[in-house]
Amino acid sequence: MNPFTVTVLGNGSAVPTSFQNPSAQLVTYGSKRFLVDCGEGTQMRMIDFKTGHRHLNHIFISHLHGDHFFGLIGLLNTLHLYGRKQPLNIYAPEDLKQVIEIQLEVSKSNLSYSLLFHNLGQNFSEPLYTDKNLEVFHFSLKHRIPTFGFIFKEKLGDRKLKRSFIDEFNPSIEQMHVVKSGADYEAEDGRRISNMEVTNDPYPPRSYAYCSDTAYFEKVIPFIQGVDLLYHEATFDNEQEQKAMDKFHSTAAQAALIAKKAHAGKLMLGHFSARFKEKDHLLAEAKEVFPATILSEEGKTYEV
Amino acid sequence: MNPFTVTVLGNGSAVPTSFQNPSAQLVTYGSKRFLVDCGEGTQMRMIDFKTGHRHLNHIFISHLHGDHFFGLIGLLNTLHLYGRKQPLNIYAPEDLKQVIEIQLEVSKSNLSYSLLFHNLGQNFSEPLYTDKNLEVFHFSLKHRIPTFGFIFKEKLGDRKLKRSFIDEFNPSIEQMHVVKSGADYEAEDGRRISNMEVTNDPYPPRSYAYCSDTAYFEKVIPFIQGVDLLYHEATFDNEQEQKAMDKFHSTAAQAALIAKKAHAGKLMLGHFSARFKEKDHLLAEAKEVFPATILSEEGKTYEV
Repeated sequence: MNPFTVTVLGNGSAVPTSFQNPSAQLVTYGSKRFLVDCGEGTQMRMIDFKTGHRHLNHIFISHLHGDHFFGLIGLLNTLHLYGRKQPLNIYAPEDLKQVIEIQLEVSKSNLSYSLLFHNLGQNFSEPLYTDKNLEVFHFSLKHRIPTFGFIFKEKLGDRKLKRSFIDEFNPSIEQMHVVKSGADYEAEDGRRISNMEVTNDPYPPRSYAYCSDTAYFEKVIPFIQGVDLLYHEATFDNEQEQKAMDKFHSTAAQAALIAKKAHAGKLMLGHFSARFKEKDHLLAEAKEVFPATILSEEGKTYEV
Repeated sequence: MNPFTVTVLGNGSAVPTSFQNPSAQLVTYGSKRFLVDCGEGTQMRMIDFKTGHRHLNHIFISHLHGDHFFGLIGLLNTLHLYGRKQPLNIYAPEDLKQVIEIQLEVSKSNLSYSLLFHNLGQNFSEPLYTDKNLEVFHFSLKHRIPTFGFIFKEKLGDRKLKRSFIDEFNPSIEQMHVVKSGADYEAEDGRRISNMEVTNDPYPPRSYAYCSDTAYFEKVIPFIQGVDLLYHEATFDNEQEQKAMDKFHSTAAQAALIAKKAHAGKLMLGHFSARFKEKDHLLAEAKEVFPATILSEEGKTYEV
């Protein structure tokens, strides 16, 4: 299996504090790196946590509140100063393009690489990104301004060859490829052997969804149904349910209810209010609803 | 004497590293706070170094390279989220206004306070800022884009009353004010006593100058002549003198030569290249030219 992980770079909301930073995450699949949101100081967190940026070619920005994108221009500038050549793709609400371009213009910076902006529109059925192993889709969240969640979906892998098949038939590389793709095996003596006899099912594809920022919003459920790991914002606690609603944010328990209804494998809470240095009660409130919940921690890497 | 200090928040050049941050300083005079430059993460450094931002009403931005202003929008946003009411003055090259305004616009933020932009033009004889005790002037540096230095000049204070004058004449508060301003004292018996007899000279006014970023540029000398503390960029070392020239930066020795020619009291080096984790040779090279040199350190506060 390819490594598929999420490193939390920042899990705070709105204002930075001594104990948390604005939103940013690095999703890793195989050797590929995907940045999700980029609050102020994200490039410093990438240094602190030694993530590097060599295989980072795709950045996803959920919405244009500052705590989710103020760090982007600094990161882009640093990649330029390091002489990056590969194009960099940015998936974001349309207005981000002019925000970046005007800052490059006033500083007279001609980037050493191309920036390719992809507007997050309303077509949710086409993937934003696709490769041999992975697809990334977006979907709408419910916030004060247009805001999107993202889901990273592993594609169904090849069927796995049984050891006994290799030992018995000593197939060529090409024959192995054919059988892995699901075809029956034609032996040298002309026998046709059913694929089911010589292979096992592929690993079940894994998926990771990112939902920040959003009010409690059941319309996300079809998009994240059965997700293995769900990061969901939990800005507030049960006492502040009204405040969460007024500000288009969620409580930890609401995040848990979404995880439960979507049959998620695991829920990771984040986007914590600056008022909670201790978050144990958020975890407890969420676990009441959905036991497989954890608190995200900055600098930690989680397996999907 | 009023406290007059400089706290270095960031003294690195261009790209952040694990050991230094982009440019920013907090100048304190009495209870007043002035921010000079605001690289990415400045608001986090203000948290780390517990500077607060209650008495911060004036921000000076030297030029529009990202490592000097990318942190401004985040700080402005945080002040808004904390419900700031007092107007905030920003002294900067003209284009900064649109950079800030467009970011507020795309995030649908209506700041809780007024932002007053002051364009750094070519009139260097009028102070940008003035109050009872202090004036701030700007002047041109020599860089790839329009760039300005700043000088904070304490005004000449009142004359100091001699203890013997108070003991002998027991003057009223009003009489003391008159004498402090330089007038002679008229005693109750009609005698006129020369001001020189009853007062001492005021403290000599102090001054602090900030020169970053700039090539070696002797035209700054008239503006900073006799400055008590000079912060001057020292991006490169002697070996890289050609590189410094090509990139419109200075070597440590060039910073020292400016300090020497301007008869500065003390020189503080900063804006260090990311390649120098150890800076002892920069200090040594500067001290050869101007012995009263120190290396700036992030988080440290220096008396002017």
